[in-house]
Amino acid sequence: MTFPKAIEINEEGPREGFQIEKKHYPLADRAELVDALSETGLSKIQVASFVSPKAVPTMADASELFAAIKRKPGVAYTSLYLNIKGFERSRSLDTVDTEGRIHFYTTDRFALQNNNRPAEQMRDDQLAMIDLCVDYGVPLEGAYIMTAFGCNLTGEVPISAVTDLAVWTAEQCRARHMPIPAIVLADTVGWASPNEVKRRVNAVRDAVPEARIGLHLHDTRGLGIANVYAALEEGVDLFEGSVAGLGGCPFAGHGDAMAAGNVATEEIVFLAHELGIETGIDLDALIDAALLAEKIIGRNLGGRLMHGGSLKAYRSGHS
Amino acid sequence: MTFPKAIEINEEGPREGFQIEKKHYPLADRAELVDALSETGLSKIQVASFVSPKAVPTMADASELFAAIKRKPGVAYTSLYLNIKGFERSRSLDTVDTEGRIHFYTTDRFALQNNNRPAEQMRDDQLAMIDLCVDYGVPLEGAYIMTAFGCNLTGEVPISAVTDLAVWTAEQCRARHMPIPAIVLADTVGWASPNEVKRRVNAVRDAVPEARIGLHLHDTRGLGIANVYAALEEGVDLFEGSVAGLGGCPFAGHGDAMAAGNVATEEIVFLAHELGIETGIDLDALIDAALLAEKIIGRNLGGRLMHGGSLKAYRSGHS
Repeated sequence: MTFPKAIEINEEGPREGFQIEKKHYPLADRAELVDALSETGLSKIQVASFVSPKAVPTMADASELFAAIKRKPGVAYTSLYLNIKGFERSRSLDTVDTEGRIHFYTTDRFALQNNNRPAEQMRDDQLAMIDLCVDYGVPLEGAYIMTAFGCNLTGEVPISAVTDLAVWTAEQCRARHMPIPAIVLADTVGWASPNEVKRRVNAVRDAVPEARIGLHLHDTRGLGIANVYAALEEGVDLFEGSVAGLGGCPFAGHGDAMAAGNVATEEIVFLAHELGIETGIDLDALIDAALLAEKIIGRNLGGRLMHGGSLKAYRSGHS
Repeated sequence: MTFPKAIEINEEGPREGFQIEKKHYPLADRAELVDALSETGLSKIQVASFVSPKAVPTMADASELFAAIKRKPGVAYTSLYLNIKGFERSRSLDTVDTEGRIHFYTTDRFALQNNNRPAEQMRDDQLAMIDLCVDYGVPLEGAYIMTAFGCNLTGEVPISAVTDLAVWTAEQCRARHMPIPAIVLADTVGWASPNEVKRRVNAVRDAVPEARIGLHLHDTRGLGIANVYAALEEGVDLFEGSVAGLGGCPFAGHGDAMAAGNVATEEIVFLAHELGIETGIDLDALIDAALLAEKIIGRNLGGRLMHGGSLKAYRSGHS
C-alpha cells in the first residue's frame, strides 16, 4: 500500500447540488454556502455551470452568483462548462477562475443523449478547446472521462474505452508541447466498485505514466467511500466531492427518498485524516457547511458524518 | 490481497431497526418484513431482543413476533439477549433458534452505562453463560466485543483491550474443550476506519489464530462500506448488517435527519458480488425488502443502493 501523504479535494457541491434541483434557491443562500466553504481550507470550489439556461434553468444566474460571493485569497472559484460557448462566458467574467478542461463520454449513446453527438465527434470537438487554451494561455487542468466505469444506456464500458481517451489526450498535448492535464475518471452513473477503481486507475497510469489521475465518484449504490479508499490504496491524490453529498436526485412521488449524489466531501476528508493523509481542510468547519447546505435545501441530505459528527470532541475527552 | 471466496452475512435489521424506534410498529408489519427477508437467501435473521421491556418497550412483544413469522427451512431466526434471563426466555421458545453468545465491552464507563457493572465484572459474568451453553449443549456461536474501535465516553480503545478479551475467550473455551466461537468486533459507536479494521482484525488473528473473525459495523460517520472492503481485503468472511441500514437514530427536533445505523446489508451484498465474492443472497429480492422496510418505517432510510437500484437490468441490456 502506498497512500499519498496529502491529497487535493475539490468541492463541487454548489454546482452539483443546485443544478439538479427543480426549485430555484435564493442567490443569497447559495452565496452564503460558497462563503462558508471558503472558510474550510478548500482550495478549489466549483460555484456554478455556464450551460444552456433552457436546459438547466437553475444555473441561469451563474454570473450573478459569482459576483455575490466573497472571494477569499488562495481559493479558486471555478465553473463547469461543456462547450466553447460556456467556456467563453466563463472567461468573460473577472469573478471566475476559469480552468481549461476537456470532456469525454465513453459511449455514443450517452454522448448523443447528453451532448447531441457521437462520442468520437465529441472527442474531436475537444481539439478546439485544447487550441483555445493554447491561444489564451489558459492551462489545461483536467481531461474528464465521464461514464468511465459503466453506462446506463449500453452497460459495461471496456477499460480500453477509457485508456484510449487518456492516450488520445496525451498525444494531443505532446504534439502541442503542453503539459498533460489530470485525467479524471468520472463515475457519472454509479457503476464503480473498489477493484474496478484499482484496475482502471492502473490501466490509465500504465497508458499515460506522466499524468496525474483524479476521481469524480458518485455514491449512487453506496460504494462511493469504499471506492475512494481503493483509490487511496493506489496512491491517487486528486478527488472531487460535494459537501453533504449534494447532487442527489429526488424521486418524484417517493417522499423524500432520492438517489445519492456525489461522495460527501466531508467523508472523504474524514477518511483521509483517519488514514493519516493530509487535506489542509478543517473537518468540523466543513461539517458545519454541510449542515448549512441541508438547512438551505430544506430536506435530509442523507450524509452520515454530518449527522454523526466528527470524533474530535470524543478524542479530546470533551464529550 | 486474499478475498474470501464466499462470505456469510447475517441480518440484524428487524431487531436493530425497531428496537431504536419510539413508535411501536404493528406486529403484522414486522412479521411481513422478516418473511420478505426469509425469501432472499439469508441464512440467519435476528428477529428481536429478549431484553427488559421497561428499558426497551418496543421489544416487549418479541415472543409474539417470533410466533407470527413464517419459518422458512434453512433459515435460523435468532434473538439478541445481554444476560442469562434473556437467554432463558429465548431458549424457552420453540420458535427461536437461540444461539450461545457472550458479550463484552472494552471500557468500564460504557459497561457501567449499558450493563450497570464494570467491564471486568461483565467479562467474568460471561463465564456463567459459557457454562450454561455447556450444560444445555448449545454451541457457543459468537463472542461479541462491543466498542471494539473506540468509546464515546472514554475515547480511544487500545488494541490490547480487544485482544485481551479474545485471548480470555479462547482460554475459557480451551479449558472446557469447547470450540472457540467467532470473535465479532462491533463498532458500536462508529469509530472504525479501514486501516484500523485491518490492524484490529490482524491483531485478533495473531492472538487467537484458530478463531473465525466477524464484524458488526455501523455507518455513523460514513465509512461503513469502506470498512467492509478493508475487512474483505484481510479475508474476513463473517459480517452483520441491517437491511436498508435500519438502526439509525432519529434526532429530536431535527426534521428527519438521523445518525446512520448499521451498514446496509444489501450494500455489503452488492460490494461482495462486484468483487466476485459469493453470498448466496438474491440482491434484487433484498433491495425489495429494504424498500418494504422503508415503507413500514415511514421515512427515508437513507440507503443508497435501495434507491439507486442494482445494475442487473443495465447489464443485461433491459434498461
